Formats: sequence, structure tokens, C-alpha cells
Amino acid sequence: MKKRLFIGIDIGGTNMRAALVDDAGNIFHVERIATQSSGGAEDTSRRLIDACRSLVARASEVGAPVAAVGMGVAGKIDATQGLLIFSPNIPTMRNHPLGVELRDGLGLPVFMENDANVFGLGENWVGSGQNVDNWIGLTLGTGVGGCIFFHSRLWEGDHLGFVAEIGHLVVHPEGPVCACGSRGCLETHASATALLKGVENAVQSGALVEGPLFDRWRQQSLSAEIIYQCASAGDETALKLFHRMGWALGLALSNLFTVLGIRHAILGGGVSASWELFIGPGG
Amino acid sequence: MKKRLFIGIDIGGTNMRAALVDDAGNIFHVERIATQSSGGAEDTSRRLIDACRSLVARASEVGAPVAAVGMGVAGKIDATQGLLIFSPNIPTMRNHPLGVELRDGLGLPVFMENDANVFGLGENWVGSGQNVDNWIGLTLGTGVGGCIFFHSRLWEGDHLGFVAEIGHLVVHPEGPVCACGSRGCLETHASATALLKGVENAVQSGALVEGPLFDRWRQQSLSAEIIYQCASAGDETALKLFHRMGWALGLALSNLFTVLGIRHAILGGGVSASWELFIGPGG
Repeated sequence: MKKRLFIGIDIGGTNMRAALVDDAGNIFHVERIATQSSGGAEDTSRRLIDACRSLVARASEVGAPVAAVGMGVAGKIDATQGLLIFSPNIPTMRNHPLGVELRDGLGLPVFMENDANVFGLGENWVGSGQNVDNWIGLTLGTGVGGCIFFHSRLWEGDHLGFVAEIGHLVVHPEGPVCACGSRGCLETHASATALLKGVENAVQSGALVEGPLFDRWRQQSLSAEIIYQCASAGDETALKLFHRMGWALGLALSNLFTVLGIRHAILGGGVSASWELFIGPGG
Repeated sequence: MKKRLFIGIDIGGTNMRAALVDDAGNIFHVERIATQSSGGAEDTSRRLIDACRSLVARASEVGAPVAAVGMGVAGKIDATQGLLIFSPNIPTMRNHPLGVELRDGLGLPVFMENDANVFGLGENWVGSGQNVDNWIGLTLGTGVGGCIFFHSRLWEGDHLGFVAEIGHLVVHPEGPVCACGSRGCLETHASATALLKGVENAVQSGALVEGPLFDRWRQQSLSAEIIYQCASAGDETALKLFHRMGWALGLALSNLFTVLGIRHAILGGGVSASWELFIGPGG
């Protein structure tokens, strides 16, 4: 049988990545495109289609046609209509028919899914979930996404339009106010947003008044990665934020393990690369 | 086919109940026996067997033989060995072969299960869970037991020897110390034990110094039912304890609904009879 290729797309708040993959999950080439621009949603969509066209061209060069496109997006999606209803990371794309535009622009079938579910489906297929029956997936990025696999299948609950919103598990009922309106959600402790907010609070309360972390805050060039670098260099404020992240993740996962009688979790997302700073016992 | 009957047993910390039921879940007769006595575990076991023999006699009077015995017990069980490993409500029965004694004493097959699972299996079979695919069960009694049904089947997780320990979901990380060693478990807010402890704390802190609730405490004749009666009569201390119970139950269930993407819970156990005192918005 002739080899077929696929395009896998990850839509992040900062970057979009489009990759050429085969049906065994091997990645041949990745295009990275900035998500936001002054041109708004139409421009974002056009640049994404251009990147995919260049992947289609690469595929045809090796004589393997692209069969379909799969796309993961944080937020609420109408997969049947190819509609991005609302994504917290790309506010310009509210009710944007991103799936339709891609389908029409490329002449290929396009499948959309919540990004945390896509993460889980990948781990289940060719990643750490391959030989695990029951597990919880967490993506630590701008926010905290979640997915659940029971008997190696994506758990969909009562099909309510939300499931596995583990980022909104309340770990401390008197904790910080979350974007969702609740208090003390996991996401308010264990996301890039929580790290940035934590530095902001330390400055406002007068606890952080000097040093490299403060300088980056003053220059408005702070990022989760910079906070990670400062923590690795021993900055107390930054280290505390990672300890708090580890505490909140530990409490959320132990609660879920206790309730579900399971013992596996798979962590992904950019912030999970700072693993060694939050996985140890609390400081 | 000839009608067959069954004996269903509920082993509680205060009372044991043995019932004659048919294969449609109809209950024909219930024997109630005190669990504890000065005679220890052997005496408890002997009195339970006597009660079951009287049910067997009743069954044979109507020409319907008893086919088997099913038993629910709070605690850790070795169902294969017919062993009650440890029950928090009946400390005298540690490593007691209660299932074996019943089997030998009655000459019938005996099945043992965790009491919260038995509660769930009953609700799923002939109760509130009959037409619900996915739901969480909670038994509010001396402690808080839990069970989970997915696709109308009892969820068993990774077969770790514990599952659905919803009573030990941490709802407040700085809450009261639980018998399990953690802090702020649901059980420390939403059980008969939590109500009794709450009155004790109110007396110790000087917040409760008079009135019917205080009098019952002083007479050492306090029970969850008395606290319920005092709350119903408007006692502030008692009402606060039920409000706290409602708050903790609401937080635990909303966390689980958020994570599992489901929307049904079934409450049972003696304390759930005080429903109208904890189901409303917090006071």
C-alpha cells in the first residue's frame, strides 16, 4: 500500500506548529508560525494554511500524499462545524471557522479536538500511555489542560461539552481567584500564568525588590522560561512558585488517585519541562 | 422455576441488619441485631448467624429456599478468603473470618463486599441509579464511603485494594486532621463523626456553653441524630455543622463532576436523612 502522510497541528497562544507525520506517529518535518499578528484572525488562519501547503508540497516531493489534517486547540470547539467557539489563548478567534478555512484552503478533511485530549490521544498511541490502562493526563502551559484514559480509551463522561477540566479542580478553597470565577483551582498554582502572577504579587507586596527576576519584571520581559531560569539559579521567589506548583499538583493528583483507585499520570506542556523544580518534596 | 430467596446483610458499627430478599430486590423481612457486645467478635458472629437461621426458617415456611448470602462491611475485606481484615467500626473483628463462619454456620455460599460498593450495586440494580450511566455514590454515616459507576458498572480502577475513597478527598488542605492522617478530608466535614467532633470543639472553645445540645454533650448522650434534632430546632452550633457538611459535599462533588464530566450523585447512609439541613446554599 502506498504510504500516506498526515498533518498534525498544535494551536498555542504564542506559536502554532504544523507537522508532517506518518501513520506510525513518526514526525518528518515541523513548521512553526507565530499565532498572533496585527492582521487578526484572518491573517493567522492564512499563515497557518500557507505552512500546511508547504508541508503538502514536501509530502508530494516524496510521493506520499497528505490524507488528512488533525488539529488540537485549547478551548471550546464545535468539531462537527469546524468552529473554534472560544479559545482563552487566542481571543481574536472567537467563533472563528478555523476548521472550515483549513478544509477549504487545503482540500483535505480536517479534524479538530481539544488540545489536552489530542495530547492524551498521542501519548496513548505512541507515547507514555501505550501500556497503561487507566491514567490522568495534564498539560502544563499557559493554563492547565486535562484528559482521562480508562481502559486505554479517552473518557468522555456524559458528553456535556466539558470533561477532565483538571485545571479547575479546587485544591485550596481560599486560594487565588481563577479566570473561571472559582478560587484556588489547580491552574492558579500550576501554570505559566500562575508563575507570572506569582512574580507580580511578590513585587506588589514588596517581597521582590531587586535581582534578575525583578529586573526582568521591570523590563516587562518576564516569561515562564525566565522564571524557570531564575529558580534554577537559586532565586528564592521563583523557587517558592515552583514548590507551590508541586504542592498543588501533588494534592490534585493524590485526590484523583484516591477517588479513582489508579496510580498513573502523564504530564506534558511547556511548563512540565521544569519537572526537576517541582517534583521533589515541598521546600 | 421455583422462587429463590437471598439474605442481604449490612454490618454497621452500631447495628447489623439481615434481610430476606428475592431476585427482584423486594425485601420481605428484616432482622436487626446490635453489633457490639461484651462477648466480643465470636458473640457478634454467633448472634448474626442466629438471625440468619431465623430468616432461613421463614424462607422455608413459604417454600422458597435461601440460595446465598451477600454481606456489606465498611473496611478492608478479603472476599476470596471470607475475611474481614479491618473494619474501622468494629475494631474487635480485626482479621476475623466472618464470611467463613457464616458459610459454615448456614451451609450457604457467602459473598462479602465493601459496604459503599454494596450500596452502589443496590442503587444500580433497583434504586436511583437504574437509568443513570455515570454516577458517584456516597454513604454518609459514621464515616463517608464512596463508589463510582461508569457505564452502569462498578468502577474498580487498577484493582489496588482501594477505590472510590471519596471520604478521603481533601476539600481543605488546612482542615481538621483525619483518622487517615491527612488534613481536611471530606469525612472530617460530612460524617456523623465530624458532627460529634464539631460539638466537642464548640464546647472546648467555649462557643457552646448552654442549651439542649450542650446538655446532651454533658450527659454524654450525644449522637448524630440528636445533633440533627437540635439543628432542626434552630440551634446555631448544630446548624453551622450541617452547613459545613453541605459546603464540603458541594465542593467534593463539584470537583468530581468537573474532572469526570458527569452530573449525577446518589447519597445514602444514615446522615443523608438530614438532607434538608445541608442541601441548601451555605448559611
